[in-house]
Amino acid sequence: MARPVRVVVLGSGSWGTTVAGLAARNTPTLLWARNKETADEINEQHRNSRYLGDRELPEGLRATSDIVEAAHEADVMVVGVPSHAVRSTLEPIADAVRAWVPILSLAKGLEPGTRLRPTQVVSECLPGHPVGLMSGPNIASEIADGMAAAAVVAMQDDSVATALQPLFASKVFRVYRNTDVLGCELGGVLKNIIAIAAGMAEGLRVGDNTRAMVLSRGLAEMTRLGEAMGANARTFAGLTGMGDLIATCTSPASRNRRVGEALARGLSVDEAVAELGQVAEGVKTAPTVMELAREYGVEMPIAAEVEAVVAGRRTPAEAYRGLRRVTPGDEEDLV
Amino acid sequence: MARPVRVVVLGSGSWGTTVAGLAARNTPTLLWARNKETADEINEQHRNSRYLGDRELPEGLRATSDIVEAAHEADVMVVGVPSHAVRSTLEPIADAVRAWVPILSLAKGLEPGTRLRPTQVVSECLPGHPVGLMSGPNIASEIADGMAAAAVVAMQDDSVATALQPLFASKVFRVYRNTDVLGCELGGVLKNIIAIAAGMAEGLRVGDNTRAMVLSRGLAEMTRLGEAMGANARTFAGLTGMGDLIATCTSPASRNRRVGEALARGLSVDEAVAELGQVAEGVKTAPTVMELAREYGVEMPIAAEVEAVVAGRRTPAEAYRGLRRVTPGDEEDLV
Repeated sequence: MARPVRVVVLGSGSWGTTVAGLAARNTPTLLWARNKETADEINEQHRNSRYLGDRELPEGLRATSDIVEAAHEADVMVVGVPSHAVRSTLEPIADAVRAWVPILSLAKGLEPGTRLRPTQVVSECLPGHPVGLMSGPNIASEIADGMAAAAVVAMQDDSVATALQPLFASKVFRVYRNTDVLGCELGGVLKNIIAIAAGMAEGLRVGDNTRAMVLSRGLAEMTRLGEAMGANARTFAGLTGMGDLIATCTSPASRNRRVGEALARGLSVDEAVAELGQVAEGVKTAPTVMELAREYGVEMPIAAEVEAVVAGRRTPAEAYRGLRRVTPGDEEDLV
Repeated sequence: MARPVRVVVLGSGSWGTTVAGLAARNTPTLLWARNKETADEINEQHRNSRYLGDRELPEGLRATSDIVEAAHEADVMVVGVPSHAVRSTLEPIADAVRAWVPILSLAKGLEPGTRLRPTQVVSECLPGHPVGLMSGPNIASEIADGMAAAAVVAMQDDSVATALQPLFASKVFRVYRNTDVLGCELGGVLKNIIAIAAGMAEGLRVGDNTRAMVLSRGLAEMTRLGEAMGANARTFAGLTGMGDLIATCTSPASRNRRVGEALARGLSVDEAVAELGQVAEGVKTAPTVMELAREYGVEMPIAAEVEAVVAGRRTPAEAYRGLRRVTPGDEEDLV
């Protein structure tokens, strides 16, 4: 019988830990936690109380704070650290990971400065590896609670993706495949910005009609940028686009939405992020996305307003007034 | 100076009354109420307490219970009665409406038996008139409260649509145009069925991830049927498709969603509709849509489960188990 595939997950935040828990039900899995206390708590008490509260993790899930040990063990590696930390996490272990090990990114932001997507950063740090990502409408706490959901493994090499599917799937967590890595990855990145706008809408109590408008026009501008960059427009209508957008914009558990709500309550960006106590990728990604929008000549009015609020140039109420100041015409011209 | 355009709205439910209120702020408007007490209340107290509670209607809005008087007065006619009542409302007044008067439908269901869309029924009753519809993410109570929203006037003749836009528009109610009447109308019809599924999801507490999945896959099956019938796929990504779908599926004020929630609580369809006390178009439309799906050879798994629940052949919990029983593969194959 073949030796089972060993999955290593880097990053013990709520989603990294949850994905490690999914894998641990199928195959030997090791989670790297930056913090030794977190690794000890997972090994001894099967809990990650900082990120997942009282929820019990599978007994088979092991953790370590030694990233080189983790890298040596990987047959498949999952990168679950925030986008801005992908490079600094992977560079030191480039020689420790075997060259053919597939890497799956979970990060949903762009690297500040380089504007690279997480899979591009992975490819720079670990050249030659098959690189992809897993994304979808996946509120971590719900999946940790065993509620049903679905995700997509996006990889150029469909046969590698097919081999990875069963490592994470379960009766209630379905895993699909898509070869449009760019489209799937941009969906996850861009929806965080729209989620901040949706959170501001919630905080300002502008109503269900306006929130629905922000989501549909938000998806339209996400799709426009994606197409301009070379992605498949259909991807944005799927789980990693519209699916993830709706989950993130409507779930009270969504971090980026919560940041938007805090901004609408009058908090500054720093205060809103501090109150959250976790990373909200949309805050750092908004200015980078607006650089891309300008470069590709794409109108992104919602992202522009979010960027202006995040930069402190506008209040959420002013941003919503700005979004309303459009002369209606043909629906196809909707900015 | 030209005589102002007189708008007549037929039907004094929550949405008909709200649209009449929008028009009355721009131009002389007359609302036909089946019920004389409702007409009197609107004329004397500027309220429609049965459907809009305490909300104050514009003083200029007049009402009548004499439909022939209303038909005689119309320069533009808006049909705001439920889909199953469009024919019986219009047939008696066919000779009373001047032949060139444009008719806008607000109804979002199919006529049982004939399977015709409301604009098709209008054209049969009032042949030769320019016929279109107004649709979008429009929760009536929010618009009656003066909250911002947007809608689309869909008409084949874009110059008539352009003339109708300013009759309903305001600073907070934007009106767009679209010439894809079929796509805009189907969006409004089909989203009511998905909203019942979303309501069942809410009632069963299956979580934000699953609700997001139901909405994205729901939009996919709406788009598939629309394309098969000859509509433009892009229309379903706009205000009358995705926009209306999200508003209806996420707003606690949505009638079809409330029916789904009541079904999940174990009520029968008759009990759920009785509890609502208003028409929920999705209940009557689900079987008709499944006939269309079979005729056009389109897979509509969510609508099929809703139809089975509405027909009493399945419980909501069984329907959700059914939706989960799909073998994942390529995302494009998502049924």
